[in-house]
Amino acid sequence: MSNFVCESNRIAGVSFSVHPMSDRFVEIITTAIEHVDTSKVWINTDDVTTLVRGRITHVFDVTKAIFLQAAKSGVHVVFNATYSVGCPGDTAGDVYMAEDDSTLNNQESTQIKQEVATKFALYPLGGGDYMNTIYSQIEAMKQYVHVSGTHYATRLDGDANDVFNGLEKVFIELEEGGSTHTVMTITMSANSPSVKGGNE
Amino acid sequence: MSNFVCESNRIAGVSFSVHPMSDRFVEIITTAIEHVDTSKVWINTDDVTTLVRGRITHVFDVTKAIFLQAAKSGVHVVFNATYSVGCPGDTAGDVYMAEDDSTLNNQESTQIKQEVATKFALYPLGGGDYMNTIYSQIEAMKQYVHVSGTHYATRLDGDANDVFNGLEKVFIELEEGGSTHTVMTITMSANSPSVKGGNE
Repeated sequence: MSNFVCESNRIAGVSFSVHPMSDRFVEIITTAIEHVDTSKVWINTDDVTTLVRGRITHVFDVTKAIFLQAAKSGVHVVFNATYSVGCPGDTAGDVYMAEDDSTLNNQESTQIKQEVATKFALYPLGGGDYMNTIYSQIEAMKQYVHVSGTHYATRLDGDANDVFNGLEKVFIELEEGGSTHTVMTITMSANSPSVKGGNE
Repeated sequence: MSNFVCESNRIAGVSFSVHPMSDRFVEIITTAIEHVDTSKVWINTDDVTTLVRGRITHVFDVTKAIFLQAAKSGVHVVFNATYSVGCPGDTAGDVYMAEDDSTLNNQESTQIKQEVATKFALYPLGGGDYMNTIYSQIEAMKQYVHVSGTHYATRLDGDANDVFNGLEKVFIELEEGGSTHTVMTITMSANSPSVKGGNE
């Protein structure tokens, strides 16, 4: 296990990408990022994904905002993300753990009404049985979004703000529940021309 | 744990999506799927992802072929996938486990030369320490593709066929090594206009 370093801090992070299915994809992504304040997170973009690291609140605040700003273009946009907290970790971006709780983008994000179809999966890698925690959190989400089952994931249909808020709560709950390493994957689709479909 | 059913068979599966960043995305996806023989797998598409289930060989054969056929269009295409084998499982698609090893699309796929940048992550959820298996498999991949580290993932740069073959081998190795539930996530990018970037 010498390849891994287990730090004591609990920096969260995400590797994500936003895919506007449009010839104007570069412009849509660039414009979206310009509208989002990323000063409370460590952020780095390469040709495959963008990495955002910092406190959970700000990691979700920034990614939700970038997706919503892109979806606002009206084109079919898909958001793919892997959120992670815990070992294996490293120290890049640790300075951002000192930021306060005040979000920089949430106020504007909540103004954007956007229906989305989402599939997410949770992987508590730190051992232990967190299934009951997951189930109770998913149950709690039902007051805001439509929840259904599908292969390898749970499907959520509803407003993007509600979906993101629900997922952030699940993630925080697992983190606070003592899972040493939690991973959550999300695929979120907006403005799809396809017929809505969920396996019930 | 009553929500899960643990079957004894080892059906593999994937939830994936292909994102052509083009106004012609529907046509590109439709044309790609038409070129791929999916008769040895269970397949189901909804508005968020496509599910493919069956034997590992055919699950990889079909997904690799669909991605390569879409990338052949020349537009920037991103492939996102979560491969899974093991519990929690279910019985839909079990009939496809009786198929033989002969792949239906690999011959055509190997004709398509396509450079890709890939990030993948492995989650052995069945307990146990599989890190050494993963490391030795990644080491073995280095003769075919360029391997580098990044946050939350391992990055692979090279020809799509080499990358897919390497990832399939890692997945099979974990499965045969006795992991009761293995998950692998892949983000693969072709024809990106962005400057190539890998964190070394």
